[in-house]
Amino acid sequence: MMSKNNNFSIQNIPFGIFSIDNGKKRLGTIIGEEVIDLYGLAKTGAFDDLKIKKNIFLKGFLNDFIGLGKPKTNAVRERIQNIFSEKFLGENICFHQSKVQMHLPIKIGDYTDFYSSEQHATNVGIMFRDKANALLPNWKHLPVAYHGRASSIFVSGTNFQRPKGQMLSENPNAPPVFRATRQLDFELEVATIIGKQNENGKNISTDEAEDYVFGFVLFNDWSARDIQRWEYAPLGPFLGKNFFSAVSPWVVTCEALAPFKSVAPEQSPAVLPYLKEKNRFTYDIQLEVFLETKTGATHQLCTSNFKNLYWTVSQQIAHHTINGCNLNIGDVLASGTISGDTPDSFGSFLELSWNGKNPLYFSDGTSRSFVEDGDTIIIKGFAEKKDMRVGFGEVRNKLLIEK
Amino acid sequence: MMSKNNNFSIQNIPFGIFSIDNGKKRLGTIIGEEVIDLYGLAKTGAFDDLKIKKNIFLKGFLNDFIGLGKPKTNAVRERIQNIFSEKFLGENICFHQSKVQMHLPIKIGDYTDFYSSEQHATNVGIMFRDKANALLPNWKHLPVAYHGRASSIFVSGTNFQRPKGQMLSENPNAPPVFRATRQLDFELEVATIIGKQNENGKNISTDEAEDYVFGFVLFNDWSARDIQRWEYAPLGPFLGKNFFSAVSPWVVTCEALAPFKSVAPEQSPAVLPYLKEKNRFTYDIQLEVFLETKTGATHQLCTSNFKNLYWTVSQQIAHHTINGCNLNIGDVLASGTISGDTPDSFGSFLELSWNGKNPLYFSDGTSRSFVEDGDTIIIKGFAEKKDMRVGFGEVRNKLLIEK
Repeated sequence: MMSKNNNFSIQNIPFGIFSIDNGKKRLGTIIGEEVIDLYGLAKTGAFDDLKIKKNIFLKGFLNDFIGLGKPKTNAVRERIQNIFSEKFLGENICFHQSKVQMHLPIKIGDYTDFYSSEQHATNVGIMFRDKANALLPNWKHLPVAYHGRASSIFVSGTNFQRPKGQMLSENPNAPPVFRATRQLDFELEVATIIGKQNENGKNISTDEAEDYVFGFVLFNDWSARDIQRWEYAPLGPFLGKNFFSAVSPWVVTCEALAPFKSVAPEQSPAVLPYLKEKNRFTYDIQLEVFLETKTGATHQLCTSNFKNLYWTVSQQIAHHTINGCNLNIGDVLASGTISGDTPDSFGSFLELSWNGKNPLYFSDGTSRSFVEDGDTIIIKGFAEKKDMRVGFGEVRNKLLIEK
Repeated sequence: MMSKNNNFSIQNIPFGIFSIDNGKKRLGTIIGEEVIDLYGLAKTGAFDDLKIKKNIFLKGFLNDFIGLGKPKTNAVRERIQNIFSEKFLGENICFHQSKVQMHLPIKIGDYTDFYSSEQHATNVGIMFRDKANALLPNWKHLPVAYHGRASSIFVSGTNFQRPKGQMLSENPNAPPVFRATRQLDFELEVATIIGKQNENGKNISTDEAEDYVFGFVLFNDWSARDIQRWEYAPLGPFLGKNFFSAVSPWVVTCEALAPFKSVAPEQSPAVLPYLKEKNRFTYDIQLEVFLETKTGATHQLCTSNFKNLYWTVSQQIAHHTINGCNLNIGDVLASGTISGDTPDSFGSFLELSWNGKNPLYFSDGTSRSFVEDGDTIIIKGFAEKKDMRVGFGEVRNKLLIEK
């Protein structure tokens, strides 16, 4: 059942939504390559003493389950670990992952996208402003963010067409033009899934923030750079982003990631008191992005790490709510593109090809500045140490060839 | 039952969600001052031949009703008009508006805020840039917009506390400070309620757009200018907006507003083909904003009109979806602040007091540059001609006095 490099070890036990043969959606977890039907497991009486209604496992989204609260959801996770450490429950409850269809795990209320990687913000600043003023004055004082589109977030495996839109012409004297984007890009991100709501008007402190996080998914914030560049002043990205985004199907819990807590970068200048943390931490999550071309060849585009982020999840949550903004269960807080210090760790084509000036060349002669029709972009992520591995699986989307 | 200045004439028949004595939420309409229980009406058999399940009127939001589609929702509206033109149905179905509690009418999926008033964008541009470059280069080529926060949109009558946040110090050499906003502002807006969904990847043309609109509400896009000014570059407004927004409780349908269709401003330069309209129209909706101070004195702040907008609702929808972005039933598309040409038609304190430089003085000696603790802001709106009046009622919120 288990291979050494398996993302879905018994330490992991992530949660997702699946169906079989177009049947009813339900909650599942995965161990090795076997998806476990949690409704089926509940019917065996496995969770009876936890006083959880069986129907909570027969839903189209995780939200109601998450709403039970961490004492119950953690008890379910531990119960699954206990059961499957001892025995394999057989065909009625376990299904090989190739037999199931995965669905969007969360009914997303609001989606926020942060901009928390210093290297990414610096790279973009150098490209579009100048090196001396790469980071804007506010960047080191607050975790910059904007609201994105929730309706167009899809699960891994969903494919899409190249979006069209308005953009500047190459001729500086000509009016803007309407055409398909020529600068379609991925963004390597990790998204926080909110697990508990705060009332409007009541902020969440950095110390309380961890309790408001259910878990994490991989996130590809697909972007059309030419559309974004023309539209974004002064109110931020809109059509350059809201055509399509994607998440990995399994929500990896805070508890599964706890062994991989790691030191977050020191911050200078000092932040305001509401952003200070008694226990400043991040997670050591290794991230990889691959390009699969229409011929089937696969090329690694970059490797990065979640711990590269300057602003932690606790700071993002504290900032997001300091004005009283209410978060709900199932809200998605994406990290922003996670770039490291070296060029092979940049988390977007914009940075990797330096806005198309330095195309990437691969060993088979393929080159890329941005995403081309028929390309598949795959983001993978995992935390690992000694014998323990907790993985996210992947988020994979193909840009369909225009008919 | 009816007075001459009544917003809720038999021509109107808007839809909303109400409850009585903390009872179950249900759909209602209003005629004069009487709220009509549509579930109660359905139980009398009033809609039996329309083949609509009675339970659709016993919901906490309008979304499922709207999802029936215009042929059915319009038939319900006309049926109500027919019934109540003839007779009054009495106490079990009609309740004086003072006896009912109104609720947020819509389960809002995504909320978009446009920036479609030329005068507003010009005023802001002059204040924060310069007169010669008041409008940014993209403004006349596309209806600028950004995604806002759906979770913090509340119904009229909800009150709130002054938000806190990070902002620049008055001392240009000092680091940013954390404190309550000193520039709390209203924004006079009207919001479109989407009535039909488009699939991701399929755009809605300007000609089709009207069919995707269920109706409209008044919208107050509460803003904290000092927070917004420090945070908004380069990704747009975030905490300066997402603490609180408010809508009027009754959704006025397109059909009720049809007699008030009006010519929209001519556009120059010409827009790209996807933004051109065979039938360019807007609505003549008169708008008023009032300040009620804690002493109970009421002062008019401004009057404006929905037809002042440079970009029409059809253009907003066509632009929003041109990249394939999917809209859902219950999405809210706010207009942006609706300012007219004259200073008494400016739709925010920012413009009325010219960023605090020219405070407003009222006859009783009261003055205001921004909203003060204990102030109530009331937005009203109505369309009127000859003997016909179709009103929105109001959106009213009080800024609570800090304890």
